[in-house]
Amino acid sequence: MLYDIGLVGLAVMGENLVMNMANKGFGVAVYNRTVSKVDEFLAQNAEGKKIGGAHSIMELTKMLAKPRKVMLMVKAGKPVDDMIAELLPYLDQGDIIIDGGNSYFQDTRRRFDELSRKGIRFIGMGVSGGEEGALKGPSLMPGAELSAYQEVAPIFTAIAAQVADGPCCAYVGPDGAGHYVKMVHNGIEYGDMQLISEAYYIMKVALGLSAEELYEVFAEWNKGELDSYLIEITRDVFLQQDELTGKPLVEMILDKAGQKGTGKWTSQSALDLGVPTPTITEAVFARCMSAYKEERVAASRILIGPDDQYKGDRKVFIKAIHDALYASKICSYAQGFALLKAADKEYGWNLNYGDVALLWRGGCIIRAQFLDRIKESFQQDADLPNLLLAPYFQEALSRVQDNWRLVVKTCKELGIPTPSFSASLDYYDSYRRAVLPSNLIQAQRDYFGAHTYERVDQPGTFHTEWIKK
Amino acid sequence: MLYDIGLVGLAVMGENLVMNMANKGFGVAVYNRTVSKVDEFLAQNAEGKKIGGAHSIMELTKMLAKPRKVMLMVKAGKPVDDMIAELLPYLDQGDIIIDGGNSYFQDTRRRFDELSRKGIRFIGMGVSGGEEGALKGPSLMPGAELSAYQEVAPIFTAIAAQVADGPCCAYVGPDGAGHYVKMVHNGIEYGDMQLISEAYYIMKVALGLSAEELYEVFAEWNKGELDSYLIEITRDVFLQQDELTGKPLVEMILDKAGQKGTGKWTSQSALDLGVPTPTITEAVFARCMSAYKEERVAASRILIGPDDQYKGDRKVFIKAIHDALYASKICSYAQGFALLKAADKEYGWNLNYGDVALLWRGGCIIRAQFLDRIKESFQQDADLPNLLLAPYFQEALSRVQDNWRLVVKTCKELGIPTPSFSASLDYYDSYRRAVLPSNLIQAQRDYFGAHTYERVDQPGTFHTEWIKK
Repeated sequence: MLYDIGLVGLAVMGENLVMNMANKGFGVAVYNRTVSKVDEFLAQNAEGKKIGGAHSIMELTKMLAKPRKVMLMVKAGKPVDDMIAELLPYLDQGDIIIDGGNSYFQDTRRRFDELSRKGIRFIGMGVSGGEEGALKGPSLMPGAELSAYQEVAPIFTAIAAQVADGPCCAYVGPDGAGHYVKMVHNGIEYGDMQLISEAYYIMKVALGLSAEELYEVFAEWNKGELDSYLIEITRDVFLQQDELTGKPLVEMILDKAGQKGTGKWTSQSALDLGVPTPTITEAVFARCMSAYKEERVAASRILIGPDDQYKGDRKVFIKAIHDALYASKICSYAQGFALLKAADKEYGWNLNYGDVALLWRGGCIIRAQFLDRIKESFQQDADLPNLLLAPYFQEALSRVQDNWRLVVKTCKELGIPTPSFSASLDYYDSYRRAVLPSNLIQAQRDYFGAHTYERVDQPGTFHTEWIKK
Repeated sequence: MLYDIGLVGLAVMGENLVMNMANKGFGVAVYNRTVSKVDEFLAQNAEGKKIGGAHSIMELTKMLAKPRKVMLMVKAGKPVDDMIAELLPYLDQGDIIIDGGNSYFQDTRRRFDELSRKGIRFIGMGVSGGEEGALKGPSLMPGAELSAYQEVAPIFTAIAAQVADGPCCAYVGPDGAGHYVKMVHNGIEYGDMQLISEAYYIMKVALGLSAEELYEVFAEWNKGELDSYLIEITRDVFLQQDELTGKPLVEMILDKAGQKGTGKWTSQSALDLGVPTPTITEAVFARCMSAYKEERVAASRILIGPDDQYKGDRKVFIKAIHDALYASKICSYAQGFALLKAADKEYGWNLNYGDVALLWRGGCIIRAQFLDRIKESFQQDADLPNLLLAPYFQEALSRVQDNWRLVVKTCKELGIPTPSFSASLDYYDSYRRAVLPSNLIQAQRDYFGAHTYERVDQPGTFHTEWIKK
C-alpha cells in the first residue's frame, strides 16, 4: 500500500498532525531522525490506523503515492534546509515538500525559488493552534503555487479546524505568503496577550481585584464583543490553584515573559515595509522589559511615582477597561492587516484579507468572534485601506472611545504602565489626523542635511538655505 | 610628495572632509569614480592646499605615505564592497581602509573580518554633523583595532569638533562598534526630532500658537535644560518666511517625513537584542505614519475625536510641555544607552559610555549640554544599568514628572497624538515596576503551548496541566 502523505519530525506537533490525518482516514508514512522514535510512535498509536513507519528518508519516499507529498515538522532554520537536501535525491519532478514549521518567510521565499528551479513544488505552511490544535483541528495557512496546494487541499482542509463558513485552511498566496500570514498572526497574538495583561494589571493594581474577581470579570467579558480563545483561557487561568501554596497559581508565576521570535519578526518586517505597528511592537518590547526583572526590582526602590490606587467607581472603571481593551484590540488588528497589505504589495502575493480572517476564525490562538466582523468588512470592501475605516469598527471606536481615553489617562495619572493601550490610542489619534507635525521634521532635515521637502501647495521637492543665527 | 591620506568619493560630505583635513595642514589625495569631478574639485579648492588628484585607484595608492590610509565616502552597501575590491590589489599588509559612510554595522563586522584575514586594517567610522560638520568639525566614531586607530588618530582628532573636554573623536571599540554607535546616535536623533515635533504639535493644535510665538518658546527653551542644536535650529525654523506666500515656511511644508534607514536599524537591532526602545521606535513609526498622508486625509473625515482645544492656563501648560519633552528625552537616551550596553555584551566591544557621550557632545546633530550630564553619570558609575537610575536624571524625572503626566493625560483627553511622549512615560512606569503583568502572559503561554514558566518562590521551570473548562 502507498501512503497519502509522509511526515518527517515526530515531536508533539508532528505526532498530533499525523494522528489528526490518520483519524480523518488518510494514510501517513512517518520518519524521524532519531529512528527509535518511529517505532515507539507506531507501537503506541498506529493500531487500526493507516500509519506506516520508515527508518530512512529513502524508505519514506518509497512508501508514498505520487506525486509524493512530504511534510516537514522540524525546527525552523538549518534543519529545514538539511532535510530538504536529504530528500531531494529521492524525489521526482512535481513532488511536493510542505514545511509546517515556524519558518521565517524570507527563508520560505528562498526555498521556494531554489526548489522551483529543481522541479520540486514547495509549500510553506503556517500552522497554528498549539498541540491541541494540531490534533483536533489547526488553522492552516499554505503559501504555494496554486497547483501544489490543490494536490494537498483534500488532506489539509479535512484536518483543519471547521467553522460555520468552512475549514480554517485555504490557499493564501505564492511562496512565503503562508508563513508571512502566520507571522502576522503571531504578532497579533503578542498584541492580544499584552492588551489582556494590561487590563489584568490595572484591575489588580489600581482596583485590587482578587483572582476570583478577575475570573468573574473575564468570564463576563468572554460573553460579549471580546469573546475569544485568549479571553477564555485567561478566565480559566484565574481559577487554577497552586498545589504548593494553595494560592492562585498566576500569582506564583514569575513576571518574565519568554518569546520565540515571531513577534519580533513582525515588528522588524513592519519597520522594513514602513508600516506603523506600535501596539504589536510595544507588546514585544513589554516582553523584553519583563526580562529586566532584577533591574526593575532595583529601580522600584529608587524611581518614584504617584499613588496607584483608583478612587472612583470600580464597576464603571472595569467597564471602561473592557472598552479600552476592545478599542486597542481593533487598532492592533488594523495594524496587522495594514502590514499584510504592504507585504502583499511588496512581494506580489495577491492576498484576500477576508479569507485570512476566516483562516484565523478557528483552530488558532487568536480565534475569536471578532474575526467574523473583519471578514465581513473586507467582503464589503476588498480595498479597505485600514480596518479602522470599516463601518462596523468605526462605529465601535466612536462608541467606546471616551472610556478608552479615560483608562489611558487615568493610568498615566496613577503611574500604571499600559504601553499597548497607549500606543493603540496614539495610533488611532495619528491615523485620523489629516495633518501631523512631520512638516517640522522635514524642516529640520532640510536645515541640517539638505534632505529637501515637499510643499503643501505644489508638487516637487524643495530645498531652502535656512537662516542660521 | 606623498600624501597623508587618500579620500575616495567627492560628494558633499567627502569634499568637506577633504577641505577640513587640508585646512588642518594634512596632505590629501582624492579620487572619484566620475573622474572629471576630481579635476573640478582641484580647480576650485586645491589652491594653496596640499590636495592632489588621482585619476585611478592605482594612481591614488601610489600617492600615499605608508602605511596607506584610504577613506571611503561612498554610498553604503555594495559600493563600499566594490571599492574595497578595487583597492585591494594595490594595498600592502598593514594599510588601512576607513569607511566613513553610514554602513550597517553587520556589514562593517563582516568587512573587518574579511580584511583582517588579508592583513588589511579596516576602520568603520561613524561620521555625524551633516555637511557643515564635515567641513568645520564633525563627530567621529571609529571602530577598529586600536593600532589602526592610533595610525589615523592625529588626522581625525584634529578635524573633529572640539569641546571643552577635548575632540569629539575617540576610539570606540573593535570592528562594528563605531558604526553601531553612529546608528544609535541616529536612532536617538529620530527620538529627539519626534519629541520636539510632538511638543510643537500640542502648542500649535491645542494652544493655537503662531510661528512667532513658537519661535519665542523654543528660544526660551534653548537657554535651559533643553539647550541643544536641535532645539536651536527648531527655533530658527519658525523664523523662516516662505518667499512664495509670505507665510512661515514650516506651515507650507508637507507633513510627510522621509527616512534613510538608520532609525529603522536601531529599532530592529533593539528587537534582536531584546532591549525596549519604545521612544525611538515610535519616532520611526511616526515617520511611517506621516507617509500615509492620503489615507489620513480620508480618515480625518470619518474617524471622530474630542474637541482638541486646551482651555486651561497657557503659560502653565507650555511649561508642562517643556517638562514632558525633557523627561521623554531622558527616557529616549536611557533606551539608547541600554541598547549600547546590550550590543556591547553581544559583540564584545568593551564600550566606554562616558566617552560615547563625549563623542556626541559636539559636531553631531544631537549635540547638547545634556550629554555632559550623561558623561558625568557614567564617569560616576561605569556600570550604571540604566541612565534613569543616575542621581542627576532620577532627580530631574522626579521633579518634572507631574507635568509630564499632565501633558500626556491631557493629550489623550484632547485626542492629540503624542506617541513618543506616551511611550516614554510608559517606559518609565514599566522600568520602575518590580512586578509587571507578564506572569499572566507566561500562564497563557504555558496553557496553550506548554512553554513552561518560572516561579517567584523557587528556581526551575514548571509546567501545569491547566484546567480546561
